[in-house]
Amino acid sequence: MPEAELSSALVRAQSLIRNVPDYPQPGIVFRDITPLLADAEALRVTTEAIIEPFAGQFDVIAGIEARGFILASAAAIAAGTGLIPIRKAGKLPRPAASVDYALEYGTATIEMHDDLPAGSRVLLIDDVLATGGTLAAGRQLVERLGSHVVGISVLFEIDGLGGRELIGDLHTVFHA
Amino acid sequence: MPEAELSSALVRAQSLIRNVPDYPQPGIVFRDITPLLADAEALRVTTEAIIEPFAGQFDVIAGIEARGFILASAAAIAAGTGLIPIRKAGKLPRPAASVDYALEYGTATIEMHDDLPAGSRVLLIDDVLATGGTLAAGRQLVERLGSHVVGISVLFEIDGLGGRELIGDLHTVFHA
Repeated sequence: MPEAELSSALVRAQSLIRNVPDYPQPGIVFRDITPLLADAEALRVTTEAIIEPFAGQFDVIAGIEARGFILASAAAIAAGTGLIPIRKAGKLPRPAASVDYALEYGTATIEMHDDLPAGSRVLLIDDVLATGGTLAAGRQLVERLGSHVVGISVLFEIDGLGGRELIGDLHTVFHA
Repeated sequence: MPEAELSSALVRAQSLIRNVPDYPQPGIVFRDITPLLADAEALRVTTEAIIEPFAGQFDVIAGIEARGFILASAAAIAAGTGLIPIRKAGKLPRPAASVDYALEYGTATIEMHDDLPAGSRVLLIDDVLATGGTLAAGRQLVERLGSHVVGISVLFEIDGLGGRELIGDLHTVFHA
């Protein structure tokens, strides 16, 4: 798709994201991407835009349970790669590594199988960057297993929560 | 891809599914599909095989959290449709309908947004059919919102747990 056309399709895709006020808590505006996912063209152009800056630079895509699976898996088909699911603790039968990370209250753990050849180049994809804690843990997990995260790509980031400071360089499709 | 070639690629994809004995409980053999997902060709041919019998018959694909998101989203990109995520209770900000269903111990609830035009033709995709309870609830949810489930397609089914009896007609890629 020519760049101008892709750009106009992306503007339309972004317009499908729905703001839900006071969810999950009063004062928070939740950005609901399900209308974008439900739209064939919006899903396609968004998926292309997530992988485009990394073309030719990765061997496989990783996504983090649960919402992260959606765009990561779409991107794997669009890019012609495999998909590595990173899961919450206790969901994988033979975890090869796990990483704990801090949540607002308490901690969480994510795990991964060892299905990658060492030295694989991994593109890590998620829908939203907020505090960045989950994505930072995902990167650590991939690297602990001997592969390299060559890029982190998200649909959009929420400013002011420290995500970009924690993650460093990343690609964001929509600047909210 | 010609049929014979697709078939040999599918045989190879199936060989990547790993049997994990005694997981999650002694006596159960868990079928781990993550090595298949991690392999670019296996993911691609499996995704094609999931949608192939329904070509031209559906407008959108639905998948159920969390593992169901993976193949459903891959299939949406391969088929050029949008994706409807069906989620566990409490994860969606504006659920339009919910369905309760029985688990081995207790019950679970799934929810959906109302992002589909009424009368949409929905292909429901999951990785494994076991008891069929989740897929039957997913179908009920889609129909409660005025759309039609035109097909249910899974990677493989586990015999002897009553899934096929509950669901009725469905497509299975691998006969385990």
